[in-house]
Amino acid sequence: MSTELNPPSLAEALNTKGFTGATGFRIVSIEPGRAELALTRRDDLVQFFGHFHGGVITALADHTAGIAITSGLPKGKIGVTVEIKVNFLAPADGSELIARAKTLKMSGSIGVATIEIFTRDEKSERLCAFGTATMRAMDLPAAMVG
Amino acid sequence: MSTELNPPSLAEALNTKGFTGATGFRIVSIEPGRAELALTRRDDLVQFFGHFHGGVITALADHTAGIAITSGLPKGKIGVTVEIKVNFLAPADGSELIARAKTLKMSGSIGVATIEIFTRDEKSERLCAFGTATMRAMDLPAAMVG
Amino acid sequence: MSTELNPPSLAEALNTKGFTGATGFRIVSIEPGRAELALTRRDDLVQFFGHFHGGVITALADHTAGIAITSGLPKGKIGVTVEIKVNFLAPADGSELIARAKTLKMSGSIGVATIEIFTRDEKSERLCAFGTATMRAMDLPAAMVG
Amino acid sequence: MSTELNPPSLAEALNTKGFTGATGFRIVSIEPGRAELALTRRDDLVQFFGHFHGGVITALADHTAGIAITSGLPKGKIGVTVEIKVNFLAPADGSELIARAKTLKMSGSIGVATIEIFTRDEKSERLCAFGTATMRAMDLPAAMVG
Repeated sequence: MSTELNPPSLAEALNTKGFTGATGFRIVSIEPGRAELALTRRDDLVQFFGHFHGGVITALADHTAGIAITSGLPKGKIGVTVEIKVNFLAPADGSELIARAKTLKMSGSIGVATIEIFTRDEKSERLCAFGTATMRAMDLPAAMVG
Repeated sequence: MSTELNPPSLAEALNTKGFTGATGFRIVSIEPGRAELALTRRDDLVQFFGHFHGGVITALADHTAGIAITSGLPKGKIGVTVEIKVNFLAPADGSELIARAKTLKMSGSIGVATIEIFTRDEKSERLCAFGTATMRAMDLPAAMVG
Repeated sequence: MSTELNPPSLAEALNTKGFTGATGFRIVSIEPGRAELALTRRDDLVQFFGHFHGGVITALADHTAGIAITSGLPKGKIGVTVEIKVNFLAPADGSELIARAKTLKMSGSIGVATIEIFTRDEKSERLCAFGTATMRAMDLPAAMVG
Repeated sequence: MSTELNPPSLAEALNTKGFTGATGFRIVSIEPGRAELALTRRDDLVQFFGHFHGGVITALADHTAGIAITSGLPKGKIGVTVEIKVNFLAPADGSELIARAKTLKMSGSIGVATIEIFTRDEKSERLCAFGTATMRAMDLPAAMVG
């Protein structure tokens, strides 16, 4: 069950720290190789036109991919981003962002994930961005392995 | 001179709004087709290991590219991100990020920029990320054209 | 039905010309916004280790995305590649490549497609690469519109 | 001097095999972390409009990046492409392509290179594409290490 995964405490820890905690990233679900995160609109997360800023969308995509990859790694390993690429498909004009990442492939220490980002309001959920991320598995400092 | 450019008020306006204003993006310089922005480290901008979060680095890269492209467009046009790709080359463990974007090519309504991101402390400045962004020129709402 | 699409003669023409014709790209199927192409292994298409060369894989991905995007455009328009990004996931060591592209989104004159590339032999079909392509819709020279 | 590099015979061997040999890729120069390759136009290398096919451009970019990265690795190691991304900036309508790759960073077994691709004729040389490639250092089969 997802909350038993490698280590859920790690995903939580990753998420509550620093930028992602301050921005309000929320973990919706984690399975091995998959993750879903959500983010509620705030005035300090938007761009010029009042939609979610592309940088915020990319940050959510990156972080969701990292949790998806990490959730499939042995305990004590963490996925670190090598590169990320995001296409913006529609204005992120909803009240919430939802990011769904899945691991496409792990080979050796390198993994690739795809991320779909949706913008949601009361009425509908629309795909607003799509990304791919390449990650490498890194050893966690011993102190951080529960 | 750079502060005369298309329209500096626009670049400033783009920058002080929403996410970029709240995060503290600072415009260092703008020339036609070029922009340099800076960002000072804060505890709400870092990741698990205490370095600038990849999403923050990508946001700064995206925004700097947008200003570089927009600075080369006719008045009343703004560069909007179609896609961005960033490679992370070294830990962003400095006290500041510096992003330098330059327009590689504008053809028709589509422009491509490259972005170098450096992490800086008292002692040195190191390249920590490199990105490319594809943008399209969009008409600004009339109300926004000074 | 797929062979009635915008214009199938165009897809065929695109495919039999120059590099794609000489390399032996084969159209398996076309639907609006989707395309599947195949390519049989030849000694002049491989790299050092005898697997399909990454450049050949990328060419097939690019071309399949172009046909998928073009198949969804009004007659007289063609999709031209703005940028393409491909991740190589496994050795392309089969006797054939299969590329399946689908249009994720068309907005205005810009479209984005994803491409899955499989390597196939008698026994199995394995995902060996994944790509995304950004295309712009261009007018065909009048002479080329049937 | 460039022909002393890690091992030049490897770069030559990589280049004369399979696709790159059949296509006529020519090594112009190699330095540690840098490579320049050239390709002469042929009717079997062009697309619909008679310009170099995007797939051929990407193949040249990929191969040039691979040689640039490999030329900086210890003997017995080869750079293998993890992912490549290319933006097409102008029609490749010249009689020749020139690709210039340089290693931006090697960290651990992962390297990143940028590639500028120019199209050249008697009169001029124009930037027609720009790419980035992520590579990983792999051990060569013992048999292949001179």
